[in-house]
Amino acid sequence: MQIDLNADMGESFGMYKLGNDEEFMQYISAANVACGFHAGDPSVMKKTVGFARRCGVQVGAHPGLPDLAGFGRREMNLTPDEVYCDVLYQIGSLKAFVEASGLRLHHVKPHGSLYGMAHRREEIARAVCQALKDVDPKLYLYAMKKGAIGAVAEDMGIRTVFELYADLGYDAEGNLVITREHGAHDPAHVAQRVLKMVMDRKVIAENGEEIAIEGSSVCVHGDTPGALAIVSAVRRAFHENGIVVAAPPL
Amino acid sequence: MQIDLNADMGESFGMYKLGNDEEFMQYISAANVACGFHAGDPSVMKKTVGFARRCGVQVGAHPGLPDLAGFGRREMNLTPDEVYCDVLYQIGSLKAFVEASGLRLHHVKPHGSLYGMAHRREEIARAVCQALKDVDPKLYLYAMKKGAIGAVAEDMGIRTVFELYADLGYDAEGNLVITREHGAHDPAHVAQRVLKMVMDRKVIAENGEEIAIEGSSVCVHGDTPGALAIVSAVRRAFHENGIVVAAPPL
Amino acid sequence: MQIDLNADMGESFGMYKLGNDEEFMQYISAANVACGFHAGDPSVMKKTVGFARRCGVQVGAHPGLPDLAGFGRREMNLTPDEVYCDVLYQIGSLKAFVEASGLRLHHVKPHGSLYGMAHRREEIARAVCQALKDVDPKLYLYAMKKGAIGAVAEDMGIRTVFELYADLGYDAEGNLVITREHGAHDPAHVAQRVLKMVMDRKVIAENGEEIAIEGSSVCVHGDTPGALAIVSAVRRAFHENGIVVAAPPL
Amino acid sequence: MQIDLNADMGESFGMYKLGNDEEFMQYISAANVACGFHAGDPSVMKKTVGFARRCGVQVGAHPGLPDLAGFGRREMNLTPDEVYCDVLYQIGSLKAFVEASGLRLHHVKPHGSLYGMAHRREEIARAVCQALKDVDPKLYLYAMKKGAIGAVAEDMGIRTVFELYADLGYDAEGNLVITREHGAHDPAHVAQRVLKMVMDRKVIAENGEEIAIEGSSVCVHGDTPGALAIVSAVRRAFHENGIVVAAPPL
Repeated sequence: MQIDLNADMGESFGMYKLGNDEEFMQYISAANVACGFHAGDPSVMKKTVGFARRCGVQVGAHPGLPDLAGFGRREMNLTPDEVYCDVLYQIGSLKAFVEASGLRLHHVKPHGSLYGMAHRREEIARAVCQALKDVDPKLYLYAMKKGAIGAVAEDMGIRTVFELYADLGYDAEGNLVITREHGAHDPAHVAQRVLKMVMDRKVIAENGEEIAIEGSSVCVHGDTPGALAIVSAVRRAFHENGIVVAAPPL
Repeated sequence: MQIDLNADMGESFGMYKLGNDEEFMQYISAANVACGFHAGDPSVMKKTVGFARRCGVQVGAHPGLPDLAGFGRREMNLTPDEVYCDVLYQIGSLKAFVEASGLRLHHVKPHGSLYGMAHRREEIARAVCQALKDVDPKLYLYAMKKGAIGAVAEDMGIRTVFELYADLGYDAEGNLVITREHGAHDPAHVAQRVLKMVMDRKVIAENGEEIAIEGSSVCVHGDTPGALAIVSAVRRAFHENGIVVAAPPL
Repeated sequence: MQIDLNADMGESFGMYKLGNDEEFMQYISAANVACGFHAGDPSVMKKTVGFARRCGVQVGAHPGLPDLAGFGRREMNLTPDEVYCDVLYQIGSLKAFVEASGLRLHHVKPHGSLYGMAHRREEIARAVCQALKDVDPKLYLYAMKKGAIGAVAEDMGIRTVFELYADLGYDAEGNLVITREHGAHDPAHVAQRVLKMVMDRKVIAENGEEIAIEGSSVCVHGDTPGALAIVSAVRRAFHENGIVVAAPPL
Repeated sequence: MQIDLNADMGESFGMYKLGNDEEFMQYISAANVACGFHAGDPSVMKKTVGFARRCGVQVGAHPGLPDLAGFGRREMNLTPDEVYCDVLYQIGSLKAFVEASGLRLHHVKPHGSLYGMAHRREEIARAVCQALKDVDPKLYLYAMKKGAIGAVAEDMGIRTVFELYADLGYDAEGNLVITREHGAHDPAHVAQRVLKMVMDRKVIAENGEEIAIEGSSVCVHGDTPGALAIVSAVRRAFHENGIVVAAPPL
């Protein structure tokens, strides 16, 4: 059995450090790298792509809303064309760092509220997917099952990697419960939960019900307290259960 | 005889309009498109590249200092590595719009104070050139003769297009006299001055002396008062003197 | 009869000029000056306050959402506390320019989407009013009738100036029809419409019905095409009908 | 004997935390609070002023260059009028938070490269001092001895508090050696150095010479590794030597 392990990386900015990307990168197979709108800056992008290269991690663009102060977590009423342009811009900028470093861009994953907007609204999903396609139609899209964006991507012939969230809650319909700040979690508990999601395709929703869930990549956050302990516990659990960690092939 | 006519385009931002790019684009052969740091935004970039495509104008990236309030005209003490990253980011972002529109990126021309810094300081010139090369070593660099950047570009095997400035003054050493705000000029006077630069390779410097000058592209500003009248006068003067306006081939 | 005539001023930014504030200021009695979030910058603020002082125009703060690219016209999901802090910050910054210029701050009027959010949502209205009050409880609030913010302001003992809009449409309920870009209007038509609003307290809504409307200040936009012609037509119509233009006293 | 202990506070931004202001505030007598240009944002400013109030710490404005990505540590070629406007804006914004919290603004201290520019260039010093004076001529200015700004402030009748730096080096002329990133220091060593500066008015310059130095406030950085250990060591050393820590009276 094989699973992809992805994380949001490169979310530092200027003097501000967020997470420990250099170390965290050793545990994952795919990195979603911030592109300077919700987080990240050109110098951080260069450094982050360098970490990924050294660890053999696939690099994707992680475009967000143009709101550094809100970390892209405050929904903004952008038009679909604005979303298209903002996403195209961000993918292009990261692609330059990836290629300058001798790699190829692997995927696109919208960040924060943009992720939520594309999950719920078809015209936003279409804008994101069109931007991806206009850069390179072979790029993977990382998204959640059951959202507008999954359907749009399929319709547009985009290869989609569906995600499972290690450290966010699900409601009874299988939608993520997204919060502005991410809290702390117990590594062992998260690892068990992830194993259950991956091996049994089940998760306990916030209302206590067990629901079906599906995906081929697990997302672990790098900016939560204890993030390294969590990702290493997840990684170990995979190893102990014979699950190979690898990103979908380029 | 053949000459390239380039102009800075796409310097609007959000609600703010600067210049009349749609009309101006009809007179030039190469557009230096702002990339969102000193001016421009993703929506403006898309629109500007569209104008260029419809007019058959070659598109280059016009990266600037990260200072929208100062329009990239206030020198900032960036490290060479910061310059490299900021320039790489901006070229990459514009390249995405160019390629999404079915074109190929043609050149890179640093903007404002970054242009001046690269003209004077070798380590800045090298950072700009490295970013260009890391995106695509066949991109042209637009620069002034006699600057550090020309020598660095030659040393790095980058094809350089040397520029003549239609509407900025030169000092006795042939260096541009760059001002924060660009003033108005008489179209007929500018056209005569440009003809002299192109055909005789001479210009009257600010101290009244006639000096030698050299270049294969003329830069006309699109944001000055009367810009359209100037560029059309220049264009007409070229036509009347049998000078063909065309950008260097991709 | 007396009426206040207010306009949004100081919405230029850096190199970008919006409107002709210096001339427009001669026609109005109260200026809502942008504070650098949706538009404006410190240098523009200084200049704009200077224009107001020379024309004897009362100066108010015009705080907006932190979105320069969207000109504060894209709704953002801010918490009430974020709204409070962003508004307090902006009022404080403008107040410094007003007082440095020997004047006293007169009022606060939220801009664009923030205006709409405070009109519709009580917790946002309360955040805006609290910021106003924490700076100076005697500041006027400029707002529309029938909105949440009017009720909140009354409840908090804040003096409110209700506005009539010269150049925006109303729906049948008397709510403004706010659009991202403001179109052109016929000055004579606008002047007649404004007279009817001020003297008869009636306006023709977008569905053709005549509805009742109430206010003691008329807002005219300075950034629309033909803005100067409109404000001077309005001003003349007031004069011809014996209506004195004056802001509420400090 | 009495000494003031000041620190730069409120330099977090959005999701990004810098330093531990809540705890650090317990050791100091004066806080220089970032105003959103080089660091800080309105929500951080509110919180930081709240910490200061609870600890009885005097609050000053800490205006910086408009360069969040560079943390105000990259010199920018602003005109004196731009400096005046940027500083006035920032003081005004912080003053609103201070007064909303029931306090009075105590001082102004320029940040980073702006501090250096005002130290070296008289016209920049004058712009900073004029902004201070236009807000409130009784505000203290925090500055270094021997700089342009000290002379300008004296000339303009501004009360100046001269600073000693606990954790930055001095050159043989008594000028600070400012670096982009601040390194770690040994608390005991710093405490001894500070005692020597305060009691003997001497410091060992970077070239090994002992030089005279003068000031009535010691600046300790809150964003360095081990900052809390350093400030508590300094505080303890003062206590053990009968030196009272207190800010100059309002």
